[in-house]
Amino acid sequence: MENIIFENGELSFLDQTLLPNEEKYITPKSKEDYFLAIKNLQVRGAPAIGIFAAYAMALIDENKEELKKYLDSSRPTAVNLSWATSRMLRAYNEGKNLIDEAIAIHNEDKEMCRKISEYGLSLLKDGDGILTHCNAGALATSKYGTGLGPLLLGKEKGYNFKVFTDETRPLLQGARLTSYELEKAGIDVTLICDNMASLVMKQGKINAVLVGADRIAANGDTANKIGTSGTAILAKYYNIPFYVLAPYSTIDFSCETGEDIVIEERSGEEIKEMFFEKPTALPQTKCFNPAFDVTDNSLITAIITEKGIIRKPFKKGLKNLYD
Amino acid sequence: MENIIFENGELSFLDQTLLPNEEKYITPKSKEDYFLAIKNLQVRGAPAIGIFAAYAMALIDENKEELKKYLDSSRPTAVNLSWATSRMLRAYNEGKNLIDEAIAIHNEDKEMCRKISEYGLSLLKDGDGILTHCNAGALATSKYGTGLGPLLLGKEKGYNFKVFTDETRPLLQGARLTSYELEKAGIDVTLICDNMASLVMKQGKINAVLVGADRIAANGDTANKIGTSGTAILAKYYNIPFYVLAPYSTIDFSCETGEDIVIEERSGEEIKEMFFEKPTALPQTKCFNPAFDVTDNSLITAIITEKGIIRKPFKKGLKNLYD
Repeated sequence: MENIIFENGELSFLDQTLLPNEEKYITPKSKEDYFLAIKNLQVRGAPAIGIFAAYAMALIDENKEELKKYLDSSRPTAVNLSWATSRMLRAYNEGKNLIDEAIAIHNEDKEMCRKISEYGLSLLKDGDGILTHCNAGALATSKYGTGLGPLLLGKEKGYNFKVFTDETRPLLQGARLTSYELEKAGIDVTLICDNMASLVMKQGKINAVLVGADRIAANGDTANKIGTSGTAILAKYYNIPFYVLAPYSTIDFSCETGEDIVIEERSGEEIKEMFFEKPTALPQTKCFNPAFDVTDNSLITAIITEKGIIRKPFKKGLKNLYD
Repeated sequence: MENIIFENGELSFLDQTLLPNEEKYITPKSKEDYFLAIKNLQVRGAPAIGIFAAYAMALIDENKEELKKYLDSSRPTAVNLSWATSRMLRAYNEGKNLIDEAIAIHNEDKEMCRKISEYGLSLLKDGDGILTHCNAGALATSKYGTGLGPLLLGKEKGYNFKVFTDETRPLLQGARLTSYELEKAGIDVTLICDNMASLVMKQGKINAVLVGADRIAANGDTANKIGTSGTAILAKYYNIPFYVLAPYSTIDFSCETGEDIVIEERSGEEIKEMFFEKPTALPQTKCFNPAFDVTDNSLITAIITEKGIIRKPFKKGLKNLYD
């Protein structure tokens, strides 16, 4: 599954808002095209956004400092975005070839996903029941993915997992993307609504929960798709290990704790209208639509990056990676 | 809000599957009409199903024993259904007027809801933030409702609650019915996705969780709409009281614990297709769609019936009601 393709000097991306019903590749032309593709979640997943923005920095001919600021504002919670644009700006200031730099970021992501997948797979055993939330698969990265990486790599190595995926309201990334991606990879996947996770855990069907991350604070508190913190509380209640899998670049040492992470709030129309034939509530009914929540580090069993598996105390373990 | 109306010898019901976009009343003619109205959730909510089935027992001219069995099979988890049909069958065997008996059941439900609402309201204070799951309002009963009863009665008495309602996937009763019903009553209501409850609780916006029940075991374990048990685990984690409000008839003393309660499993199409413009997952993707889950009694702060407020140990408290 390739979601970002750079060929013959031209970038194209798979429009993830059309999945699973249509597979359509689009070539962005202007900086607005790039901005909207990120904002509207046509390209999504923290690492994929970083790769995509890196190509934008290389391909759009404009003041690079202003371009960086503009692109960064498309998804404020995704730290990989500003990480990638900062690196591109530095490369620009150092007179490097920007296309080579973007390709390097893309290739490093593939290598990084492979390492995360291997570390993650070492925590699982053949036949395990796995719960996932949102989509942290190949569609969210370059290849393998982070949260889904151990499942996709495991499949290649002959493991048989029984995966349950939360549909992940309101944007349904678990249904539209994760179940699609795992089905295409030939993995045994069952789609559930988010609120069924408690029952599935109680029935003993889950041996581990795997999720990605959008931002990890220095103490291990983790911002990820809305609903992640609730899933982690359920996993704790049922004594099921809860693993966060994410690139090292997701760790934001400038955030001491999750309290410092800004939570993006999105339009209520995503809850009441998007995807539905008819609105599910009256026009005047208010909605609250936070896109992320922060999972307290006490609920996390281990954080897996391409640099290894970190267990508690996370503050020390994450700092060691940095040093 | 009147969802079941008996006038001039004719029964009509509000088709809840069309809400909030259309308010349409339907008059069932055959036993199949009654059966399908329950099975397809046009009439839903344990008490409303009981009232509706009572009228069916009175109005359909057939072998009453076979009719009872047939109606009971439309929703196996709802104990009020077989409670009401049993009472109607007994009335028939005693030579009573069945229409009078159905009207009595209907009126007793109104009185019962009023009492539950008063007991429930005594546990809340003006300005409280409340979380609800699914729909246990007037639409699910005759008037006031059970889970929503304290809110609707409180509104009449001048209380100002700030209510958050889970949309309640997959059938969206929280969005389509609860937010509709509270909005119509002039109550401050905000719609959220089920997976946002953890964040809303963490932000300190919730002082109490109110839910209804489909069946309560002798030890207080409670079967209710899928997702209720997860919400209860979150409430426990965040130290928020979790209240179950239901008619006394919901208590099934023949079930010692929640283990004895049969969980209805419904079609996966409800998850992937129902309400959506396009399917959210591939045709071959499996779904698991349990309609209920069981909340462990340890997670419940109090069970409120028309006979009063029961606290732990529930087994003793519930038994005292029976004696």
